[in-house]
Amino acid sequence: MERIKPHTLSGFMELLPGEQAMMDRIMDTIRRVYGLYGFTALDTPLIESSDVLLAKGGGETEKQIYRFSKGDNDLALRFDLTVPLAKYVAMHYADLTFPFRRYQIGKVYRGERPQRGRFREFYQADIDVIGDGALDIMNEAEIPSIIYRVFTELGLHRFVIRVNNRKILTGFYDMLGLSDKAGDIMRTVDKLEKIGPEKVRAILCDDFDIPGESAGRILDFMAIRGGNDRVLAELSGHTGKNAIFDRGYEELKTVVTYLKDFGVPEDHFAVDLTIARGLDYYTGTVYETQMTDHPEVGSICSGGRYDDLAGFYTDKSLPGVGISIGLTRLFFLLSDRGLLNGELPTAPADVLILPMTEERAFAVETATAFRAAGIRTQIYSENKKFKARMTYANRLGAPFVAILGEDELEKRMVSLKDMRTGTQELLTVEGAAEKAAAYVAQSRGMAPIKE
Amino acid sequence: MERIKPHTLSGFMELLPGEQAMMDRIMDTIRRVYGLYGFTALDTPLIESSDVLLAKGGGETEKQIYRFSKGDNDLALRFDLTVPLAKYVAMHYADLTFPFRRYQIGKVYRGERPQRGRFREFYQADIDVIGDGALDIMNEAEIPSIIYRVFTELGLHRFVIRVNNRKILTGFYDMLGLSDKAGDIMRTVDKLEKIGPEKVRAILCDDFDIPGESAGRILDFMAIRGGNDRVLAELSGHTGKNAIFDRGYEELKTVVTYLKDFGVPEDHFAVDLTIARGLDYYTGTVYETQMTDHPEVGSICSGGRYDDLAGFYTDKSLPGVGISIGLTRLFFLLSDRGLLNGELPTAPADVLILPMTEERAFAVETATAFRAAGIRTQIYSENKKFKARMTYANRLGAPFVAILGEDELEKRMVSLKDMRTGTQELLTVEGAAEKAAAYVAQSRGMAPIKE
Repeated sequence: MERIKPHTLSGFMELLPGEQAMMDRIMDTIRRVYGLYGFTALDTPLIESSDVLLAKGGGETEKQIYRFSKGDNDLALRFDLTVPLAKYVAMHYADLTFPFRRYQIGKVYRGERPQRGRFREFYQADIDVIGDGALDIMNEAEIPSIIYRVFTELGLHRFVIRVNNRKILTGFYDMLGLSDKAGDIMRTVDKLEKIGPEKVRAILCDDFDIPGESAGRILDFMAIRGGNDRVLAELSGHTGKNAIFDRGYEELKTVVTYLKDFGVPEDHFAVDLTIARGLDYYTGTVYETQMTDHPEVGSICSGGRYDDLAGFYTDKSLPGVGISIGLTRLFFLLSDRGLLNGELPTAPADVLILPMTEERAFAVETATAFRAAGIRTQIYSENKKFKARMTYANRLGAPFVAILGEDELEKRMVSLKDMRTGTQELLTVEGAAEKAAAYVAQSRGMAPIKE
Repeated sequence: MERIKPHTLSGFMELLPGEQAMMDRIMDTIRRVYGLYGFTALDTPLIESSDVLLAKGGGETEKQIYRFSKGDNDLALRFDLTVPLAKYVAMHYADLTFPFRRYQIGKVYRGERPQRGRFREFYQADIDVIGDGALDIMNEAEIPSIIYRVFTELGLHRFVIRVNNRKILTGFYDMLGLSDKAGDIMRTVDKLEKIGPEKVRAILCDDFDIPGESAGRILDFMAIRGGNDRVLAELSGHTGKNAIFDRGYEELKTVVTYLKDFGVPEDHFAVDLTIARGLDYYTGTVYETQMTDHPEVGSICSGGRYDDLAGFYTDKSLPGVGISIGLTRLFFLLSDRGLLNGELPTAPADVLILPMTEERAFAVETATAFRAAGIRTQIYSENKKFKARMTYANRLGAPFVAILGEDELEKRMVSLKDMRTGTQELLTVEGAAEKAAAYVAQSRGMAPIKE
């Protein structure tokens, strides 16, 4: 037979079983937390009609898109979960209840130049709340509390959710008479942390012809730091001059107040005037999430408030707020930085049953009892020597091995070996199940991330 | 703005939130049961290199495949989960532990002519056990016990797992001197139920030149019916003449014996000599699963034993056994036949909190307490009249509504309304959480299928 070398495409993550178990644990945690906040799960097609997916148009994205024909159809793979959501809400508007809260965890596709830590197929884990004509500000405060809970339950503790409000920036540049340059300024200010204030000032003045005095005021504004109350106090000094600024200030103040109610600790949450996110889409509160010890990886969860989800499909006004976690990249980073919890059991079975005789009925009976107790159980039925069996058990990484030899069969009991300690006990099937179940329950409480 | 009509491609399932909740419940159940049997989860890319995906070649499949270019790459969407598994095992051979037990639930793509109940994007839910050079027969007996448990836990009870062994058929046709026509015969016999024995005889004799006497013996053989012990007894009458037949008979007998140990009731399991499955791939035990009251839908879970998983990638001998559930089609059928359990709650929230005043802190505190108790909770924060709020609650379908008015705020208590009975009680936050948690625990035990 002519053989083909098996390979996986570059830019496509394919995990080994133990890694996959860890990834699944992360995904399950996110799913569970999203669910606790009353979001409904959606699962839209990966392929959409190109006219639907590209309705909004979009330079860079369009170049990266996977687009192809099948029969007469011009098709494309989704490149995010927001456009499919917009399509879904516009299309099923009459069947949905607003505010419509949905989460979706799914793969998206972008034909980026492959490089370390960049993926062409990757998971996004999104939540959005969509209003019908209006949406209360409280949703903008609840979102960071969900971010807080997701990462805390994942085992990540050293992170800060940075929050800003686009109306504050829009209003501030308006006050400076720089509305038409707002986009350029935001993009430049975004580099503040990387290149420092002097280079930012130079770009603002030289490249965008912004007067030195205005550039100075911009840098002073961006330099406002301190606790959230202090930042808000400084901002209040700018109120009363611009209606958009004032509205942004009020919104931000409301979000900060609610956040305390939602139990997000002050040290996990920072008003940061340098956060702007993309340019056209967001209109109010914006979020970024930074790992305290790994600022170099950028934001691990971002989003914000927008006013018009689906204007390219419908005349309904659909404002919303949402966030997205780039899950594949996050997993890569956690693994790369050694932040995955090595103590979390990732074996597919909690107990491996080793029948040492030809008899199988008692092994099956034991397995059935274990499984009824929620214990993931595998029977090793291959005809191998004891040593080969124990090698298998070790490689599998199962926390327990249940040995069924002549003696155990006769007594209808199980020798349960704890593979971590090496201790072995002769137990009844029920006793062994209890012991394994206790371990399973304990390991369920373990977090996949360990800083 | 120029608007595009939002639409979903024909042949692509896109569910409304309540339907999706039901589908997710089915998927979660399958995932949990597969996990209990010690299968590890895999998640391979949806896109593979065309040379990898089409290594085996394959007429009909190749026409249906979604194949396209991106840059210099000739790419294709996976059309099943078996080829990606073969690639995975061949590629990661050194990192895996054999027998390697994996499950995968994922979307696959086939550009079939769209028609009612046929999908171009659909989920398969597969398990496979792969041996390294050899694989014990016991795995072939465990598989139907997993099928049994999956469907039973889903709430389906009226189904029969039909089992045969390809070696019995191969040996039988060999005894008749018809080895070279085995493929044609199997394809014809497969139609027995649909067209009846007389038409089958006619096709065998007229189209394939099989002597009348042989055709008669084939039909007699296929007509062997009765309890499994009786069928096995009849089969034993044919032993001693053909080594392949005898091996098939022994294997089938072993599988039937183990099945009893595994606790599969006799009425859910039938030896059926007409089951053959595909032609080249399967080499031993084969399975089909039929809904007793809906034979017209065909098999809802099929598979079997094969000897060579990945010969087109590697010289390693990798025998295995596996099954596949066509999940999207199954969901469509269940929905179409009215077999989904309408009593299963599908709302995204267990409790909807309705704050009736401007005050929000107590609502947030209540939500936080509920969520800590594992209750999926939504705060309705829109500024609407009481009637509009109750309409929302009704449309959402949340089983409980927690009303927080002036009175409740003052007492720091919650008016919990049971939306199914209409009764309303004033409870402490803990009391309300307890009540809702009890309902959640109860509804978790409900099955998604109701016959």
